[in-house]
Amino acid sequence: MTVTTPPPDPARTPLTASGAHGEPRREPDGAYLDHAATTPMSAAALAAFVAEAQRTGNASSLHSAGRTSRRAVEEARETLAKSLGARPSEVIFTSGGTESDNLAIKGIFWGRRAQDPRRTRILVSAVEHHAVLDPAFWLAGHAGADIVLLPVDREGRLDLAALRAELAAHAAETALISVMWANNEVGTLQPVRDVVRAARPYGIPVHTDAVQAVGQAEVDFTESGVDAMTITGHKLGGPVGVGALLAKRDLALDAVIHGGGQERGVRSGTLDVASIAAFGVAVRHAVDCVPDRAARLSALRDDLVARVRAVAPSAVLRGADPASDDRLPGNAHFTFPGAEGDSLLYLLDSAGVQASTGSACQAGVPQPSHVLLAMGVPETEARGALRFTLGATSTEADVDRLVAALPQVVARAQAAGLVSGRAMGGMA
Amino acid sequence: MTVTTPPPDPARTPLTASGAHGEPRREPDGAYLDHAATTPMSAAALAAFVAEAQRTGNASSLHSAGRTSRRAVEEARETLAKSLGARPSEVIFTSGGTESDNLAIKGIFWGRRAQDPRRTRILVSAVEHHAVLDPAFWLAGHAGADIVLLPVDREGRLDLAALRAELAAHAAETALISVMWANNEVGTLQPVRDVVRAARPYGIPVHTDAVQAVGQAEVDFTESGVDAMTITGHKLGGPVGVGALLAKRDLALDAVIHGGGQERGVRSGTLDVASIAAFGVAVRHAVDCVPDRAARLSALRDDLVARVRAVAPSAVLRGADPASDDRLPGNAHFTFPGAEGDSLLYLLDSAGVQASTGSACQAGVPQPSHVLLAMGVPETEARGALRFTLGATSTEADVDRLVAALPQVVARAQAAGLVSGRAMGGMA
Repeated sequence: MTVTTPPPDPARTPLTASGAHGEPRREPDGAYLDHAATTPMSAAALAAFVAEAQRTGNASSLHSAGRTSRRAVEEARETLAKSLGARPSEVIFTSGGTESDNLAIKGIFWGRRAQDPRRTRILVSAVEHHAVLDPAFWLAGHAGADIVLLPVDREGRLDLAALRAELAAHAAETALISVMWANNEVGTLQPVRDVVRAARPYGIPVHTDAVQAVGQAEVDFTESGVDAMTITGHKLGGPVGVGALLAKRDLALDAVIHGGGQERGVRSGTLDVASIAAFGVAVRHAVDCVPDRAARLSALRDDLVARVRAVAPSAVLRGADPASDDRLPGNAHFTFPGAEGDSLLYLLDSAGVQASTGSACQAGVPQPSHVLLAMGVPETEARGALRFTLGATSTEADVDRLVAALPQVVARAQAAGLVSGRAMGGMA
Repeated sequence: MTVTTPPPDPARTPLTASGAHGEPRREPDGAYLDHAATTPMSAAALAAFVAEAQRTGNASSLHSAGRTSRRAVEEARETLAKSLGARPSEVIFTSGGTESDNLAIKGIFWGRRAQDPRRTRILVSAVEHHAVLDPAFWLAGHAGADIVLLPVDREGRLDLAALRAELAAHAAETALISVMWANNEVGTLQPVRDVVRAARPYGIPVHTDAVQAVGQAEVDFTESGVDAMTITGHKLGGPVGVGALLAKRDLALDAVIHGGGQERGVRSGTLDVASIAAFGVAVRHAVDCVPDRAARLSALRDDLVARVRAVAPSAVLRGADPASDDRLPGNAHFTFPGAEGDSLLYLLDSAGVQASTGSACQAGVPQPSHVLLAMGVPETEARGALRFTLGATSTEADVDRLVAALPQVVARAQAAGLVSGRAMGGMA
C-alpha cells in the first residue's frame, strides 16, 4: 500500500472565539479515527428523525396525534427487538447508554435487594465503562452496596475462575453481575455467555453493556441469556440522546427516573419519538451490515496495525490478538513508550488525524486508564495510550494519513515526555 | 366570530395496523388544542438540529471534531442562560423535564442530607407534576424521606400560610421545597417569589418546575431567587428528549445519572449536541416572543372560554380567573358535570379536535386528577375534566372547530355518563 502525502488540512485553521458565534465553521476533514466515541448519524436515520420531528404528538396522549406518535415508537420498538433477538416488550427506551447502565445497575440492585436484603454485592469486571462503575460505587456510598471488581487477564478478558469462586462463596449476597460485551478502550470481547452459565444456577441476573458491540459484532439478546443489555444510538449511526435497556420481563427492576410512568413505569419522561424512530432505523441497518462491515473493518484495522508497527516499532498493541475472534473489528489500541497519550492526541490532531487516548481525561489532566491498569500495564506505559477506532465511513485514506503523520508525532511526543520526565525528576 | 362547519376530517380515516408499516400516514389535520402536552418543533430549531446532526463529534473528545461539538454546546448554554436570566455555568443539560425534576428532587435531597442527616423533609405543593411527586415518594420509600404535601386553594394556588407554618415548625429537618411555576393542568401561576422569601431565612433551597411557563410567561432564574429550575425543549418549540436544570453553583446537588462526569459531574452521558443546539434556538425564540404571544393567546383563550360557556352552559372553568395575572395565557380547563373526561376526549377526537383530560390516564383507566382533588373539586366532578391548551400555531379556526363540535360531544358524553352511572348504581 502506498503512503500518500495528505493535502493541506483546512481543519488546522485556528478555531477562534469569533467562529463560535454565527460565522461559518469549517468541518474538520482529516482522518476521523474515533468512531468508538461517536460515529456519524446515517442519512436514513436523520431522514427518519426529520419526518417525525415535523409531526406533533405526545406518544402518551390519547387523541389521534398522540396515537400516531405512539405507533412510530412501537414500530421502532419492534424493529429494534427483531434486530437484536429480543421481544418488543423487553425494550425500554432511555436517553442513551449511560442512563441505560444506570438503570441496569441501580434498578436491578434496588429490585433484587427489595426481594432479599442480604443481596448487597455488585460484581463488575474491572474494565467496565464509568457508566457502570460509577453507579455501582454511588450505591456503595449511599445504599450499602458492596462492589466486587472482577479481575481480567493481560488482554482485558474477564477471569471466569475468579467470577466462579466469588459466586461459590457469596451467591446469596449477590444482587447482580455486570460484564460488558466488548471493551470500549481495547476492544476485547468478553465471555458473556460463560458469565451467564456461571450465574444461572444461582438465579443471579447478568447485565451487559453492548454499546460498542452492536453493529460490529453479532449480538442476540435472547440467545446470549443475559437479563439486561445496554445499547445506544450514536455508536451505530443513530442520534445521540437515545438508547435502550433490553430487559427480561421477569427481571426485578426499579426505576431511576420517576414520573409519568412511561415504558412500563421503569423509565418516565415524554417519549422522544423522532429520536426513537431514527434509532430503530439505525439499529436495523447496523445489524444487517455486521457481516460485511466486520470483514471490511477487520482488514482495514489489520492493515492499520501492521503499518503503525512498521513506522513506529516501539508501539505495543494492547488487547486481544486481532487474528482471534475476541476483538472488535474496528479497534486498534497501542501504547507508545515514553510518550504521553494527550501529547500524541494533540499532535495527531494538528496533523488532521483524530484519535483518542481511550481514557477518561477530564480538564486535560491525564489519568492512566483503569482498563490498562487492570490488564497489568504499568502506569508509566499506560500513560502513552492511543486508541484508533474505525466505523462505517472509515477508508484506507484515513489509515494512510495516520501512518504518514505518526513517526514525527511519536518522536515529538517522546521528546516532550523526556523533557517532562526530567522536569518531574527535578521536582521530586 | 362566525362558527364555520369544519370540512370532512381525513384524520378520522381509521388507522389500520398496515398503516403502521411503511404506508404513507395521514397527518391529523384537526384542531390541536394540546400544546401543554407537546407543541410543534419550530423550523429554526429543526434546522439547527440537522446542521449539528450532520457533523460528527463527541463534545467530550479533545480533538478538533470534539472541540467543534463542544463549542456548539457552549453556545447553546450561553443562549439559554441569557434568555432565562441565568449564568452559563448554572445550566445543566438533561434529557428533559422529567429527568431535570428527578435530578432536582433526588439530587438536592441527597446533597442536603449529606450535610445534615436530620434533613429528611421534602415540601412539595399538592398539585406538582408526577415528575416531582414520584421521585419524592420514591425517596420516602427508599431513603427515609418525609413528604409534606402543601395545600392549595380552590384555584390551585399554593397556601403560603401553610408553607410558613411548616417551615416555622420544621425548618431544621427540611431538605428542600419544590413548587412549580405554573400548573400543567389548570394553568395557575404559583407565588414562587413568595416561596423563596419564606424559605430564605432558613437557607432552604427552592426548586421550581417551569416547564409549562417558559415561552408563555416571563421567567427569570436569578430574579426569581430559586435555587433550581426545570425547563424542557418540547414544550416551547424545541425537540423532545432535551431539557435542563438551572442550578445555582453553591447548591448541594448529587447526581442521578453517574458515569463519564459530563455537566460538572452532575449529569453524565454523551452530550446530545444536535438537540442542545436546537434547544438553545427554541428557548431564545420562545422567550423573545413572550410579550406578543401572551397577548395573542390570552385573547384567543378568553374567546375560547366565552364560547365554550355559551354552547355548553354547564361547563365549569377551573383554575385562576383568566382576567387575573395568575393564569397561563394558553390554558383553559373545564369540568363538564355528568360526563367522563375520557369520553369527551375521544368524542372530540372523532370530530377532529385534540384535547386532554389533563390527568394521568394510564391504560385507559380514568383516574381523577390529583390537581383537581387538591383544589377541593369533588371526585365525581373531577372525572369530567377537559384541558384545552394553546400554543404558537393556534388560531381562531381551532376554537371554531372546538365550539362547533362541543355541544353534541357534551350531550353524548353526558348521556353515556348517565348510562354508566346507572350501571354503577345497579352494581352497588
